[in-house]
Amino acid sequence: MRTEAQMATRQSTPRRQDSALQPTIAEYLIKRLQDYGVRDVFGIPGDFVLQFYGMLQDSPIRVVGTTSEACAGYAADGYARINGIGAVCVTYCVGGLSLCNPIAGAYAEKSPVIVISGAPGMNERRSDPLLHHRVRDFHTQRDVFEKLTVASASLEDELTAFREIDRVLAACVRFKRPVFLELPRDKVLARCPHPHVPVSEVVQSDADALQAAVAEAREKLKAARNPVIIADIEVHRFGLQRELLAFAEQNNIPISATLLGKSVVSERHPLYLGIYEGAMGRAEVQKRVEKSDCIILLGTFMSDINLGGFTAQLDPAKCVYATSEKLRIGHHHFHDVLFTDFMKAIADPKFTVRRAAPKISQPKVAAWKAADSRKITIARLFEKINSVLDQQVVVVSDTGDSLFAAADLSITQHTEFLSTAYYTSMGFAIPAAVGVQIANRSLRPLVLVGDGAFQMTCLELSTAVRQKFNPIVLVLNNKGYSTERFIQEGPFNDILNWNYHRLPDLLGAGWGFEVHTEGDLDKALSAAFANQDCFSILNVHLDSLDVSPALKRLAARLATRL
Amino acid sequence: MRTEAQMATRQSTPRRQDSALQPTIAEYLIKRLQDYGVRDVFGIPGDFVLQFYGMLQDSPIRVVGTTSEACAGYAADGYARINGIGAVCVTYCVGGLSLCNPIAGAYAEKSPVIVISGAPGMNERRSDPLLHHRVRDFHTQRDVFEKLTVASASLEDELTAFREIDRVLAACVRFKRPVFLELPRDKVLARCPHPHVPVSEVVQSDADALQAAVAEAREKLKAARNPVIIADIEVHRFGLQRELLAFAEQNNIPISATLLGKSVVSERHPLYLGIYEGAMGRAEVQKRVEKSDCIILLGTFMSDINLGGFTAQLDPAKCVYATSEKLRIGHHHFHDVLFTDFMKAIADPKFTVRRAAPKISQPKVAAWKAADSRKITIARLFEKINSVLDQQVVVVSDTGDSLFAAADLSITQHTEFLSTAYYTSMGFAIPAAVGVQIANRSLRPLVLVGDGAFQMTCLELSTAVRQKFNPIVLVLNNKGYSTERFIQEGPFNDILNWNYHRLPDLLGAGWGFEVHTEGDLDKALSAAFANQDCFSILNVHLDSLDVSPALKRLAARLATRL
Repeated sequence: MRTEAQMATRQSTPRRQDSALQPTIAEYLIKRLQDYGVRDVFGIPGDFVLQFYGMLQDSPIRVVGTTSEACAGYAADGYARINGIGAVCVTYCVGGLSLCNPIAGAYAEKSPVIVISGAPGMNERRSDPLLHHRVRDFHTQRDVFEKLTVASASLEDELTAFREIDRVLAACVRFKRPVFLELPRDKVLARCPHPHVPVSEVVQSDADALQAAVAEAREKLKAARNPVIIADIEVHRFGLQRELLAFAEQNNIPISATLLGKSVVSERHPLYLGIYEGAMGRAEVQKRVEKSDCIILLGTFMSDINLGGFTAQLDPAKCVYATSEKLRIGHHHFHDVLFTDFMKAIADPKFTVRRAAPKISQPKVAAWKAADSRKITIARLFEKINSVLDQQVVVVSDTGDSLFAAADLSITQHTEFLSTAYYTSMGFAIPAAVGVQIANRSLRPLVLVGDGAFQMTCLELSTAVRQKFNPIVLVLNNKGYSTERFIQEGPFNDILNWNYHRLPDLLGAGWGFEVHTEGDLDKALSAAFANQDCFSILNVHLDSLDVSPALKRLAARLATRL
Repeated sequence: MRTEAQMATRQSTPRRQDSALQPTIAEYLIKRLQDYGVRDVFGIPGDFVLQFYGMLQDSPIRVVGTTSEACAGYAADGYARINGIGAVCVTYCVGGLSLCNPIAGAYAEKSPVIVISGAPGMNERRSDPLLHHRVRDFHTQRDVFEKLTVASASLEDELTAFREIDRVLAACVRFKRPVFLELPRDKVLARCPHPHVPVSEVVQSDADALQAAVAEAREKLKAARNPVIIADIEVHRFGLQRELLAFAEQNNIPISATLLGKSVVSERHPLYLGIYEGAMGRAEVQKRVEKSDCIILLGTFMSDINLGGFTAQLDPAKCVYATSEKLRIGHHHFHDVLFTDFMKAIADPKFTVRRAAPKISQPKVAAWKAADSRKITIARLFEKINSVLDQQVVVVSDTGDSLFAAADLSITQHTEFLSTAYYTSMGFAIPAAVGVQIANRSLRPLVLVGDGAFQMTCLELSTAVRQKFNPIVLVLNNKGYSTERFIQEGPFNDILNWNYHRLPDLLGAGWGFEVHTEGDLDKALSAAFANQDCFSILNVHLDSLDVSPALKRLAARLATRL
């Protein structure tokens, strides 16, 4: 029997050996990032995050420097869209708060990006000092990110930090939304005081609700004469393209996609109808969808742009609407059914409702021949682009007519088209294209960007130079914010007309081309595709009033809301 | 006597004529901006704010377009520092959330910037639709800005909107911090239903507390042998430079300034000692301040950088510490005393404590002669800059050694030196310099910016071109993030070495110079000063390890905290 003194001694002895075996917060975070598939982290260092940067640098994870934190955010978003998850690491406040807009965009469009920020040490905060980079309180940065992420934590205490990392990263993967982790610099090397067992909550569908929903969907499909699918971005985010194709092919249902979800299936698939966007899209797609007696919306964002400025006529009674947030069949809502489980169930051959193959006439991609001296127009530019798309090219569209005109491009494989067609933040495309190539070096980005958006983030081509990447950038130079000209004209829509093709002179690398005519375009694009070693940039001079028909229709819709 | 029916009729009759005489929310806001001295508004339009943009354009206020919203934020901050108040107007979320970092910096450093954002109309929100630019809820943007501003409001109801505008703008002026106003697009033309009488709360000092504090300060000063002033940025923000000088001159007290407050008095004033920054600054200033038996801190930020990485030795018992937030004399705290009232009281001749003029030896500004072929160093660069400063030049320093090395420049007039010496956000200087010239065309900015910071916001020189401004930009090209190299070296501190002097080729205007030697610098700077019509940019090649002594000392301090 031990004495009380012995017991007290035993209790107070630190279990040094056990504790030393536990990982530090930084080690654990770096390991978990890798577990979730993060192979690269974007960002810019700063003194509050330097030690963690050093540890990242020494880990298998690659650290990718960018020109600004905002660009790091867009790059991580683009990377996440290809890789399935992305991450960005920056310093306290001056770094983190520069990420607000790209992370808000990733939230809006369900791109899972992990934001990691350094922070002042807990020991430095005791007397509430005015440390550089501090805004209001030491928790101001986290307060902001709580509004812009699906989960967030400050890793201020090693007792809870490891569980917090588990919780926050799990939420990122489950909800496909950004998350935020703040790491005080004196906690980087703090070790878990106890052995940490990773906890992961398994979320399951209610089996009965799932069965009822699937049965009802099958009944609805069975009764339908001309069902149609509208597929969107969640199918891609949750990795359900195979299920989508199986369901469509087994049941012979034509597939349309939204603008945001463009390329979620190959646009050369025999069941592919085209982009559905209400009155804004091609009339034959609109007719086919809106005349359907069973519209199956899979992972679809019911956003204003996806719905053609809410011109879409989709009678809920005829719809099967399945997303990660909602499952509605006619007017019946089903709760507690996971999108993934529903998709797997309808993709199961047992679900199949036999039906004859539908007739679909896809627009032909015409061969393009330059009328050498004819001034280039937006219509002819996009016809040309359509004629050169192949498996290797990924189109990344910025906001503006570069997006709307792109609706009718014919994309050949999954995730070959990236845009922010819901959040529509200008400046996304160039840094996102860098993220794409970091994620998959064999993809070659074709970046479509207006002059206004280009002026916001074009310098990120610096990172393409450092990485020896070869994106092709088409600047749709219509001398201003053309989307807005069609809503309300004013001198505030004008911008300075740069020599966009001279950017290579500043960066010390890249090829620049000036394009006035169809002949110029033909030659420049051929040279750009042949140029495998560095980026190419085409300054495509367009008339300031030359916009796509889709933009004209959208602007007219938006103007009615003023 | 009227019947009840008559009374009811009278009550329910809409007072159409009265109501039509009331201003719309937009009209009132535009008028109040002018009342407060806003003559220019920076920003980028977007569909949710276009109508308000049109009205701004038609008002006496000038609308200044920038290349990105972040740059608009920095420009408005720089403008506010010269003009006394600034404003920025952007679209919903994609615009506003891009402002988070510059506005956080303005909050931290007390620069009064009014943020105005468009927003979806209240009528559009009813069914909670996914409108483009929406993040989570319709109030997400406002939630974020509540954390980053001193007052905020969404002008969602015309009944309260006019009072809210009054409240929010008054807070901006009173606290010298940013504020936020969100204007739903269907409320732009909403009129006040009743006559609106602007309400302004008058905040007054407690007369007894003020008298007691002033008397105690005078006793302390009377008993002092060698008093000294540390003046900082609040003296400038609250427009109290005249009071500061009167107090110092009448009582013959030497004045030091902080790095953040640099140039709050002319650095050629006979009572001026130099920059006090603890162990980081010049030894004679440190000695004089820390040996003083009465240190009078006026409007001083007790921040890590101002205090030389907290190396400052300032015994509270010997201090009189007066700011807009706190008044402390020795260990006595006084509440309810306005900084302005305290400053006016001590500047009153009646306060004067007679004292002999102190002896101050100011470092001489040496004539600079180029050793033509000698490689340029940071020390020689700053000697050269010091030799060319005159009344017309305003130095705008970005974060990094461009800031620390600038501590010993000799600035000749008020507000002639701008920096973010507390928040230290990279990328501030170039857009802030644009804001400076918008505020006062006769000031000529000399911009000191490291290559890392330059890569973040250099494109804002586009706006300098549009406005026909002539800033001179010195890129301190030391090939990476040098401040961080001294804390922790790693490949993440390297950046691409651009041809910075080729930026004019991209923008289509401006003069570029490459500087390797003292002779190059001499010639380039002469040409740049002679060039009145457009911006000049000097790519000053520095060794990557050539940094100022101040930075070496700071980095050593910061490294101990890792």
